[in-house]
Amino acid sequence: MLTYNLNNRGETPLYDYIYQCIRQDIISGKLAPGEKLPSKRTLSRHLNVGIITVSNAYSQLLTEGFIFSIERKGYFVRNVQSLQKQPEAADETEPYPEETPEKEYFADFKANRTGITHFPVSTWNHFMREALSQQDGNLLKTIPFNGLFELRRAISNYLRENRGMVVSPGQIIIGAGTEYLYGRLMQMFGRACTFAIENPGYKKFGAISASFGNPWKYVPIDENGLVIEALEDSEADVVHVSPANHFPTGIVMPITRRIELFEWVNRAKKRYIIEDDYDSEFRYSGKFIPPMFAEDSNDKVIYINTFSKSMVPSLRISYMILPKQLMNKFEETMSFYSCTVSSFEQYALAKFISEGYFERHINRMKNYYKEQRKLIFSEIENSPLRQISEIQERNAGTHFLLKIKTTLNENQVREAGLASDMLLSLYSDYGFENQEEGSCTLVINYAAISREKIPAVIDRLSNIFIK
Amino acid sequence: MLTYNLNNRGETPLYDYIYQCIRQDIISGKLAPGEKLPSKRTLSRHLNVGIITVSNAYSQLLTEGFIFSIERKGYFVRNVQSLQKQPEAADETEPYPEETPEKEYFADFKANRTGITHFPVSTWNHFMREALSQQDGNLLKTIPFNGLFELRRAISNYLRENRGMVVSPGQIIIGAGTEYLYGRLMQMFGRACTFAIENPGYKKFGAISASFGNPWKYVPIDENGLVIEALEDSEADVVHVSPANHFPTGIVMPITRRIELFEWVNRAKKRYIIEDDYDSEFRYSGKFIPPMFAEDSNDKVIYINTFSKSMVPSLRISYMILPKQLMNKFEETMSFYSCTVSSFEQYALAKFISEGYFERHINRMKNYYKEQRKLIFSEIENSPLRQISEIQERNAGTHFLLKIKTTLNENQVREAGLASDMLLSLYSDYGFENQEEGSCTLVINYAAISREKIPAVIDRLSNIFIK
Repeated sequence: MLTYNLNNRGETPLYDYIYQCIRQDIISGKLAPGEKLPSKRTLSRHLNVGIITVSNAYSQLLTEGFIFSIERKGYFVRNVQSLQKQPEAADETEPYPEETPEKEYFADFKANRTGITHFPVSTWNHFMREALSQQDGNLLKTIPFNGLFELRRAISNYLRENRGMVVSPGQIIIGAGTEYLYGRLMQMFGRACTFAIENPGYKKFGAISASFGNPWKYVPIDENGLVIEALEDSEADVVHVSPANHFPTGIVMPITRRIELFEWVNRAKKRYIIEDDYDSEFRYSGKFIPPMFAEDSNDKVIYINTFSKSMVPSLRISYMILPKQLMNKFEETMSFYSCTVSSFEQYALAKFISEGYFERHINRMKNYYKEQRKLIFSEIENSPLRQISEIQERNAGTHFLLKIKTTLNENQVREAGLASDMLLSLYSDYGFENQEEGSCTLVINYAAISREKIPAVIDRLSNIFIK
Repeated sequence: MLTYNLNNRGETPLYDYIYQCIRQDIISGKLAPGEKLPSKRTLSRHLNVGIITVSNAYSQLLTEGFIFSIERKGYFVRNVQSLQKQPEAADETEPYPEETPEKEYFADFKANRTGITHFPVSTWNHFMREALSQQDGNLLKTIPFNGLFELRRAISNYLRENRGMVVSPGQIIIGAGTEYLYGRLMQMFGRACTFAIENPGYKKFGAISASFGNPWKYVPIDENGLVIEALEDSEADVVHVSPANHFPTGIVMPITRRIELFEWVNRAKKRYIIEDDYDSEFRYSGKFIPPMFAEDSNDKVIYINTFSKSMVPSLRISYMILPKQLMNKFEETMSFYSCTVSSFEQYALAKFISEGYFERHINRMKNYYKEQRKLIFSEIENSPLRQISEIQERNAGTHFLLKIKTTLNENQVREAGLASDMLLSLYSDYGFENQEEGSCTLVINYAAISREKIPAVIDRLSNIFIK
């Protein structure tokens, strides 16, 4: 007869404890395959517990298949001798230490940590709360595959009023980050499609292509951006560009080159341009640069932008705009995928944009970055770096190039940076470019460098190159 | 000389208006390629505006490449005659009507709209606010590719205490929905990998495989779930199963079949099991069904679950747990992708779980669904349906099967449903199964059917089958 010490069960419910004991005996073979279990009544008397308790234990064993029942005959043990492993006893203590946190540098030129101190937390909070409390009915509804109408409409209005772009909300697709949206685009284009990216440029696009099994090619740039002859030679079908602010050079693609690029795209039906407008918001003189999307008359430009850069990096909301015909294709082939952004955040962002807070936030950030930039320039001017370096910049974005005369090679520069607790960003990190003899070009991305640190950062930079 | 009526500019800044006028004249050809523009001083006198204004207009035209400058000679018009299109004037009125909203049925048996009325909005709100206000420093940091440590730790603790699963936070990957996580898995496995799904079962997994270029096969089920001989014959490498609650039959895979499935997976190195535990939380008698992940001793099971089902559908947070070796492979090949869930929501959910609210919420929902279920059963018992139908259910999940004797074919049933403003869900919607002669099996998913409607819904159902 099954005998278990019920005093050992601790806080486990009685039925659960009996179930576990029998289960263990079946697994260990103490109860042999085919063996008959005592009847519920017998076992309940034997263990001095209620018949319901035994019944519940048997019922769980039945559900999991450790025993089977034959009508009017009783319960029998199944053959589970080949069961590999008894589930590990869950340890009551928490066995997992904190993970090693991300290394914090004195200065990190690769991070894109837009100052959250400038993010209007309380306004955002307000809209999140509003979304949660007022939208009860709507939060229940399935989010359309391309995102909430309210957010797409807010983006459409914003682009019309601030960018001169005429876009229907039906052409907009919301997604959790640009990388996610690129993935869907690649699936829509299919694996026969070859992509081109600028060299130097957004290297990650190449990694994403590769992970989707799509071939991709580097295409060189000159002082006006992408070299169209090289693009033609690459035999790529779809090209990724940032005409308003090439990364990392800051080149604005002039209208003449844009015309050539349009000519390229119009030469073959399957060709498209992906326009990544990632930080077009931050331009410090004049007005915004018109996107190619707005200049396109043949439905050949896919526009993509993100709120992670303009709001806070930890907000994962991006969008892309497809020409109408491509949108039909996307809907046919990709709309079975659910939208990846929670509706709370979509509602909050829709309100944040439509009530004008987004525009104000952008203006505030623009002023902040502008001051930041000025301060760095003036610190460089007042440092020994002045003698050996040249600033290459185009009044936009949150980075510029600093070309420094030096006999150090790139690895030496990198290591000297680390020795000063700085993660430097080199021009060659963004493409295949070889170092020019006698000089080294740094990408000074100052988004994550706080104002107070700037003098010390420039000082440390100087010390790397001037002994 | 360039002459423009500056009174027409409306609210446009002066420099911007002059820029637009010259730009238009260049595009239209009124200003010919190579033509020299008046000097800034001359134009400023002529238009009676400040020289800075003209300078700003010229500078924007220069940046965009519509003009070029030759030192000491002045500004000249570039050849942009082939420019295709002048950006459309942005209309001031909002031209986009509301999109046609999702059709609302009297009863929708396909929707998964867990009652938000039961969602603890104010607690969630509290944690969201806390996340936004207290985590300033952390919100700045880049989210690890696999999600915030805090959330992964909370999940790890929850699974240990409530599921008997011993999982390190380092094995957990957070993502925006299970579909997203499936995609990354497929990329990691590569296109040589063939997937198997249950028939009937989670059909969408097939669609996702196809969109990643992976072959996939249907494998039939019997009363114990997946038929292992058929799985072997399919030559699939990785199989998707829901052993705790098969959809839509509710079958719990018994230990004997699990052993056979383990034997299958251990026969070849490249084989894996994806265990989708999507609604294992909702079991109305006995305790939870142990996941195969916990029974696996050869690191062959990938566990996946979602908070969209257990919390609210509009919250897009899911997670998967990889065996350690596979986690290394995932990190090597897929960690360049950024995490797709905003850190605000990850913090809030971490707190919600670790402070016990998740467990309480699950218990509340379990009671709610249990009552819901009871009410539907009793309404069916008291309706004419009783005579012609059979309930097939396993005390779990938010759905059951209702097999109804009828001479109607499936299309007739579907249409009669629509005529009564109900979107019916048929067993055959989830696989290739043909209708059994003389009967029709409905999947009664009651997650989105409110209590008050239940009597009327059963009434309408009766009227379809009983004239």
